[in-house]
Amino acid sequence: MKTAIIGATGYGGIELLRLLMHHPVLKVSSIHSFSQTGEAICAQYPHLQSFMHASLQEINIDAISETSELVFLATPPGVSRELTPQLRRRGLKVVDLSGDFRMKEPEVYEKWYKRPAPAADQLQQAVYGLTEWKREEVGRADLIANPGCYATATLLAAAPLMREGIIDERTLIVDAKSGVSGAGKSPNAMTHFPEIHDNLKIYKVHEHQHVPEIEQMLLEWNTAAKPITFSTHLIPITRGIMVTMYAQAKDEAAARKITELYKQSYDDAAFVRVREGTYPSPKEVCGSNFCDIGAGYDERTGRLTVVSVIDNLMKGAAGQAVQNANVRLGLDEQTGLQFVPLYP
Amino acid sequence: MKTAIIGATGYGGIELLRLLMHHPVLKVSSIHSFSQTGEAICAQYPHLQSFMHASLQEINIDAISETSELVFLATPPGVSRELTPQLRRRGLKVVDLSGDFRMKEPEVYEKWYKRPAPAADQLQQAVYGLTEWKREEVGRADLIANPGCYATATLLAAAPLMREGIIDERTLIVDAKSGVSGAGKSPNAMTHFPEIHDNLKIYKVHEHQHVPEIEQMLLEWNTAAKPITFSTHLIPITRGIMVTMYAQAKDEAAARKITELYKQSYDDAAFVRVREGTYPSPKEVCGSNFCDIGAGYDERTGRLTVVSVIDNLMKGAAGQAVQNANVRLGLDEQTGLQFVPLYP
Amino acid sequence: MKTAIIGATGYGGIELLRLLMHHPVLKVSSIHSFSQTGEAICAQYPHLQSFMHASLQEINIDAISETSELVFLATPPGVSRELTPQLRRRGLKVVDLSGDFRMKEPEVYEKWYKRPAPAADQLQQAVYGLTEWKREEVGRADLIANPGCYATATLLAAAPLMREGIIDERTLIVDAKSGVSGAGKSPNAMTHFPEIHDNLKIYKVHEHQHVPEIEQMLLEWNTAAKPITFSTHLIPITRGIMVTMYAQAKDEAAARKITELYKQSYDDAAFVRVREGTYPSPKEVCGSNFCDIGAGYDERTGRLTVVSVIDNLMKGAAGQAVQNANVRLGLDEQTGLQFVPLYP
Amino acid sequence: MKTAIIGATGYGGIELLRLLMHHPVLKVSSIHSFSQTGEAICAQYPHLQSFMHASLQEINIDAISETSELVFLATPPGVSRELTPQLRRRGLKVVDLSGDFRMKEPEVYEKWYKRPAPAADQLQQAVYGLTEWKREEVGRADLIANPGCYATATLLAAAPLMREGIIDERTLIVDAKSGVSGAGKSPNAMTHFPEIHDNLKIYKVHEHQHVPEIEQMLLEWNTAAKPITFSTHLIPITRGIMVTMYAQAKDEAAARKITELYKQSYDDAAFVRVREGTYPSPKEVCGSNFCDIGAGYDERTGRLTVVSVIDNLMKGAAGQAVQNANVRLGLDEQTGLQFVPLYP
Repeated sequence: MKTAIIGATGYGGIELLRLLMHHPVLKVSSIHSFSQTGEAICAQYPHLQSFMHASLQEINIDAISETSELVFLATPPGVSRELTPQLRRRGLKVVDLSGDFRMKEPEVYEKWYKRPAPAADQLQQAVYGLTEWKREEVGRADLIANPGCYATATLLAAAPLMREGIIDERTLIVDAKSGVSGAGKSPNAMTHFPEIHDNLKIYKVHEHQHVPEIEQMLLEWNTAAKPITFSTHLIPITRGIMVTMYAQAKDEAAARKITELYKQSYDDAAFVRVREGTYPSPKEVCGSNFCDIGAGYDERTGRLTVVSVIDNLMKGAAGQAVQNANVRLGLDEQTGLQFVPLYP
Repeated sequence: MKTAIIGATGYGGIELLRLLMHHPVLKVSSIHSFSQTGEAICAQYPHLQSFMHASLQEINIDAISETSELVFLATPPGVSRELTPQLRRRGLKVVDLSGDFRMKEPEVYEKWYKRPAPAADQLQQAVYGLTEWKREEVGRADLIANPGCYATATLLAAAPLMREGIIDERTLIVDAKSGVSGAGKSPNAMTHFPEIHDNLKIYKVHEHQHVPEIEQMLLEWNTAAKPITFSTHLIPITRGIMVTMYAQAKDEAAARKITELYKQSYDDAAFVRVREGTYPSPKEVCGSNFCDIGAGYDERTGRLTVVSVIDNLMKGAAGQAVQNANVRLGLDEQTGLQFVPLYP
Repeated sequence: MKTAIIGATGYGGIELLRLLMHHPVLKVSSIHSFSQTGEAICAQYPHLQSFMHASLQEINIDAISETSELVFLATPPGVSRELTPQLRRRGLKVVDLSGDFRMKEPEVYEKWYKRPAPAADQLQQAVYGLTEWKREEVGRADLIANPGCYATATLLAAAPLMREGIIDERTLIVDAKSGVSGAGKSPNAMTHFPEIHDNLKIYKVHEHQHVPEIEQMLLEWNTAAKPITFSTHLIPITRGIMVTMYAQAKDEAAARKITELYKQSYDDAAFVRVREGTYPSPKEVCGSNFCDIGAGYDERTGRLTVVSVIDNLMKGAAGQAVQNANVRLGLDEQTGLQFVPLYP
Repeated sequence: MKTAIIGATGYGGIELLRLLMHHPVLKVSSIHSFSQTGEAICAQYPHLQSFMHASLQEINIDAISETSELVFLATPPGVSRELTPQLRRRGLKVVDLSGDFRMKEPEVYEKWYKRPAPAADQLQQAVYGLTEWKREEVGRADLIANPGCYATATLLAAAPLMREGIIDERTLIVDAKSGVSGAGKSPNAMTHFPEIHDNLKIYKVHEHQHVPEIEQMLLEWNTAAKPITFSTHLIPITRGIMVTMYAQAKDEAAARKITELYKQSYDDAAFVRVREGTYPSPKEVCGSNFCDIGAGYDERTGRLTVVSVIDNLMKGAAGQAVQNANVRLGLDEQTGLQFVPLYP
């Protein structure tokens, strides 16, 4: 399956390159970038020396459609809105790692992203690729909107709670912590080493653009879902997200057996690992496609605490994108993704 | 004022030494340790070379009472319970940085600390030294129980909310993040560099021993206070605590003016700085005695998000201990504590 | 090829487990530890959950010899000296990651390691497994002494210089920097997070135990080799070694073409990558078996500066051990080792 | 003494502000910046809230000369060349933290800085402010060229060796490691957190602009001085420089007593602390104006290893600048600089 990557020089893009280097079916036919056309990828990223000597090409949709059947878009907000319709018109399958096609309602996108949304019918055609809960639709989709990194960790933790109705839907609070690679490859004041090293920062309080895709899925699972509190913190690690989730139990008996609920929910999910009596750390999934989850019920308060961790560039971006591509192509979901986490 | 430090080789102890090195009134008369008697402090801590050449002495209460009038106890749990009654009997003032005398009820201590409590009457005599809210009592106290690091950051953020009754008391959730120096100086598997660097860990879920001192103060401020959810995360920084606090507003009008409330509450507090429209980071208080606070109200959910940061070894330990000693001795509260934060 | 790992719970041991999880030929038959017998490996290392549920076994040489043909020893100094003769007597192949069998002369081992050496004849039988320069001997060896992490990075950088005689042999200075995982898994005061984070430390000045294995190889390559200056610094990263090497050129013409020399020397070495005009960083080889090298000549001083980087747990330990096992078994050297570095 | 700071928003500038906040003699009369005129300094740097509410002013030399007597220039290369002559003409004393006035020969500046030098006579008037070795000249100077951070750590370590002639002058090699704050406040690809965290980088190999000021001083001390090898590494810490220096001893007897030599050389230097038998780490001087030095002689190689550490923003920039101003004003050198290092 000949594959193009657009936005190959961002962190999501080079993680895709890492994954496709040894994928048995998906083969990189071309790599594309906006600003570095003509440059060999390994000039910018010497870790790829001996693996890839291809040069970055301009984004010519006609040329891409001649040499590729599948395209990964690892592009900044707004780009996919332009490129995806052109790629689809030429019959290419698209896995979009950006947020452009995650919302069903254009006005929701526009409110949170503060830019124009794709056309409403295109939004409807896109499938939100939270693989574990969307396998069937992903298997038929030609436009897959890959979930956001925070949204992935949050939704995999929230799904059993919301679907089974064991929590008071009005009480869901998500305190999320992310490594700095999640902020992308462009240097800025917030990601300058002396500012974030030995420090941490809360940002986009009450305004993070992953809120609407989370709430959209929660509502799909449970019509009683309500707006959530969702806080994002930048912490001084490179890769990794930890979500700490709080909710008031309404079914206490179920809450006391919370680990069992998670085990049942993810029994057949190769990439979700449930802890028994312990809580996971991001390093335990580093470089892998796993989401590890631990949960506990506090009798004193009647509240559940659920912790989920992912590698934001893997399960939160490139890994889940390949997982979705595998499902779409009818391959085993784990194809090319069986990495043991790099520990320590 | 001749001062002894017991437990001088722990991180709280050496921070006290740093502060007293230039304090105009408090003068170090002797330093004590359990295991390193006879060793010069600057052999173990070369950063003190040229400031202090004293050697660590054994803990002889009689000898201490002859050369000191005030004692800082920076000792592990259970030690103060033994030493404090002996020190008090000889008329020494005690500032205890450990948790031994923070609870009013012995059984609460024993439940959370899982060790024997001091006698009930001694617990009653101790004053909980959250300086900003206990100035008068601290000014008269001969036994000051210095608050825990997490408790300090939490209570300074919670005080206005609870005292003014603007939140639903059943909904207080505290997601706390601490640097590794808070875990003390003894190496262990959790604080081994390769385990916590580029990683973070939630620990003592629903069981942290700072919960009861927080709940005790909340109840003192507001009899409707309920058990709180309190989560502690170890993050890969050395110094610093950030508390992210969530609560449902019950007084929406007050919630919309949340920053004003904090500004009024801490108008006369030299060490609490309130942000307007922004949120603080731990590095902005590093090495200083400040607690910086920022707050916001989310109309979508009706919830408040409040963030407070401290240096856990300063306002969370040695700094507040000196602040309390200053108050007790009738000095300006800021004496010897006017450090500009070390940034970056 | 049934394989046992002794010392499976150290950082070298779990890295071996990661590598063997998907190795097509080497299969883990049993894992062994001194102190944690009976415990499931994934209880201690949850990142291995879903990959391995085996329990740690005691070290019973007879039992091991019944179920395994090859043994990796990832054990502390002195252990291999005891176990290796027993394993060899039963006909097992041994790859020893410890330093016990790296020296040819017992007295050299005893001087630098300050403990008893193995018997002289056993030392003679061992092959020093610096794969790129010992392929033939490794291919015949039944006891492979896997090089030290610092020694690997140093020797791969020094080999062309010393073999071709282009530097003044009296002037070789090695300034080496290592991540903290190189100090092993046992917590101690030096590796306690608050001590080494945001800090770095020089240690074992003029006394590091990797000096003699480096000098032994240098002498093998060039009889004019002299004692080297070798400094080791602990830096606040988890994985990775960088060696900065300095030497006075005696062949200036060759020195000006230093990159060519490296390219020729490692033309057929899959795991050594030579930079042209740039210098490598440890993150560019993280999680992989590569040694990346960059070099430059300074006309002002007549000196060469050579930089080499490895992942200390891979090329510096488990990766090179598997590479050596591959060579010994007649497999392609890269079998099971084709990891793209994890970047960033 | 009314003092202006030009370039107040860089890391050197805010460190000067920290120091002057409590300096008993030097008082900040105005702060200046190129791009942020009109903004309150504590809007950009909230750690200064409650200390300073002044706004940044434009750089108007006439206005500055009316309100200030002394100016600190913490500006990028090339700015001081323009401003200093104007300031001097109006009679202001100047302490220049940039490199513009450190060289005596214009052509040397132009070769290494690749930009036009100040006029030769102005270069001659400037005094190179390595305080410990230039006290008398600094005491009379109206234009003080504050040394570079790397140069300070290097020269304080090299001075006794070169002045006493105990090393072979052709063999001096300096392997320097610096924290990222040394690269300044502007974000770029090299200082982006995901690139340098858990990593380290060698840079400007054989080309660092601090080389000529080091060699100029070495020659002043010892006419036999030769070009040095000088390597700079960016390491993932915020503050701190460690210099590891190597040289062949020519006076072995003196080399064996190397610690005594340092102790004698810096007997009267309040800010240089010599270790006996141990080596310093940057954290041991963090936030302070100390340079700590340790040294050892290796009989095997006949070489000395000397390690010096400083806080690059203090002794390497703002601290030494204030120390120089103190000397110039006839104050005790330590005035306003008696900080105990912040440890851990």
